[in-house]
Amino acid sequence: MVTKRGDLPHDADLLRADSLAREIFSDVANKWALLIIGALDQGTLRFGELRNEVEGISHKMLTQNLRMMERNGLIERKVYPAVPPRVEYTLTESGQALRATVDGMCDWTQRYLGHIEAARRSFDG
Amino acid sequence: MVTKRGDLPHDADLLRADSLAREIFSDVANKWALLIIGALDQGTLRFGELRNEVEGISHKMLTQNLRMMERNGLIERKVYPAVPPRVEYTLTESGQALRATVDGMCDWTQRYLGHIEAARRSFDG
Repeated sequence: MVTKRGDLPHDADLLRADSLAREIFSDVANKWALLIIGALDQGTLRFGELRNEVEGISHKMLTQNLRMMERNGLIERKVYPAVPPRVEYTLTESGQALRATVDGMCDWTQRYLGHIEAARRSFDG
Repeated sequence: MVTKRGDLPHDADLLRADSLAREIFSDVANKWALLIIGALDQGTLRFGELRNEVEGISHKMLTQNLRMMERNGLIERKVYPAVPPRVEYTLTESGQALRATVDGMCDWTQRYLGHIEAARRSFDG
């Protein structure tokens, strides 16, 4: 994430990878994208189903995040001709792998719940 | 992350843990908090040093995120009497453990760089 410039020789590929990694990371490290990934881990969902699963998300935020995720290859979007058109979203292999790292974050939260609650009481008191 | 209500019996503790997990997760799942954690993984840093390490962060965003992280027990803040006062920030055990999950996310990005770049070319084309 945070790299020291100039400490080590970098070649062009490494610099490009580092820059892209930061960019993707910033895109995906938002609450809604992670909740959408969690919902799609259950399987393919339609737009309306996703909106029901991700509590509190607006139509606009869901649309924006789905476009970002499709652009980054995390989800596949399929449109079936119908009236109204049926649109389905599925996690790709990279999206599923990202899900595993998201799970790691959830495990962390469960493990440190007590510590977090104590810290909050101390901070707020 | 996304849980089905009513599928399984939940006791009060589980419901509380689930609710707090979602809340913490939302707080921490932001770009700046994760970059700050990355910077502090190198060791204790002063406010001004953090601001240099986390490229592009404003004074306000750094202050807000440090307060949120201190409140959640991710960092410890120490003030040393001096003129001007010296303020140092250090990752706690839970903050260090969170860093490991952050690393998992970075590993993911490196692994799927090629896939991501191809998806972007396709989406933008």
